[in-house]
Amino acid sequence: MLKKPKAIILFSGGLDSATTLYYVLSKGYDCHALIFDYGQRHNKEIRSAVAMAKSVKVPYQIIKIKLPWKGSVLLDKKIKVPKYKKSRKGIPPTYVPARNTIFLSFATSYAEAVGAQTILYGANAIDYSGYPDCRPAFVKAFQNVIKAGTKNNKIKVRAPLIKLTKAQIIKLAMELKVPLDKTWSCYEGGKKPCGVCDSCRLREKGYSALNLSDL
Amino acid sequence: MLKKPKAIILFSGGLDSATTLYYVLSKGYDCHALIFDYGQRHNKEIRSAVAMAKSVKVPYQIIKIKLPWKGSVLLDKKIKVPKYKKSRKGIPPTYVPARNTIFLSFATSYAEAVGAQTILYGANAIDYSGYPDCRPAFVKAFQNVIKAGTKNNKIKVRAPLIKLTKAQIIKLAMELKVPLDKTWSCYEGGKKPCGVCDSCRLREKGYSALNLSDL
Repeated sequence: MLKKPKAIILFSGGLDSATTLYYVLSKGYDCHALIFDYGQRHNKEIRSAVAMAKSVKVPYQIIKIKLPWKGSVLLDKKIKVPKYKKSRKGIPPTYVPARNTIFLSFATSYAEAVGAQTILYGANAIDYSGYPDCRPAFVKAFQNVIKAGTKNNKIKVRAPLIKLTKAQIIKLAMELKVPLDKTWSCYEGGKKPCGVCDSCRLREKGYSALNLSDL
Repeated sequence: MLKKPKAIILFSGGLDSATTLYYVLSKGYDCHALIFDYGQRHNKEIRSAVAMAKSVKVPYQIIKIKLPWKGSVLLDKKIKVPKYKKSRKGIPPTYVPARNTIFLSFATSYAEAVGAQTILYGANAIDYSGYPDCRPAFVKAFQNVIKAGTKNNKIKVRAPLIKLTKAQIIKLAMELKVPLDKTWSCYEGGKKPCGVCDSCRLREKGYSALNLSDL
């Protein structure tokens, strides 16, 4: 039997990374998940990520990162998460400085250490919050860092959802039988999603476009 | 009085980063040091870095990183540090997967959070160990990650020593009055440098070229 190719996935347990996980598993990869505990507002997303990784028997590592600085609504509980009724432009205050660069750096280190040739990144740049580190230009730039700065410089960063709309992602998730009710996208950590943060709003937009409800 | 420009420096307390620190202080920067406790073989370099930062009144942050994987002699005390009598080619087993990418990612986050426009990186690619993440191509690639993936995308990564020989670095350090006897370059953490690891060998090469002794 051929050995399955190894992949490292950045896994938050949200809609996008869960769909990416199911997608890469459907392609026959031996997937290892990296879950980050980076001081986000709540650990509900970490619990969701761990539960989902366990449910599909994907080995995972939780990386604990203590940033001694703030600079983001997601790192500072004293600031309220902004509520949006409609779409807006620019980079929102939920942007965490260089967060995804840090995450991909750890994934690169992990991939090199265990001999994985692929890093999976659930970024999306269509129905997204405007984060610069979710765009194709960033993925390409990070790919060049791997090429120039690592020993195993053939590792590829794949972002299979990057050009899909939120509705297309939800449709794909349904086809792949992702347990969508187990994913957590909301920036808040309550019992139910708040429905008004940027992340909830984008998720709702996807469901609406499909004439479906997330509730 | 004009406000000093802020800079973040990756600071290990070794010859190269100490010289970079003194260099950037001589240029009038308000310097903040990042010291990494990443599971290296010994904490002597961390103690050296802290002591030196304190001696020049540079504020510092120690970032603790727990990599759950190995993949390097520097992360695994069970493997002996290789000894070299002469120069060799290729990437040595002391390479830590994506380490400097991780370090620069944290520096970028810090720089964004506190509004610093400059990151100082003491990499050197002339008399060096062959680490890919010390070369100009890597610095350039990482610069492009900042440009494509951050909010404050004008932050510049500077590596002022990158094209200097070790002898030129030692000469510059002496001009800048770097307390060279307080820097620690050895991969081992004994009372005295081992003298035979790659880092010791390169340092010795620089001193020899200047007809000086490090002892």
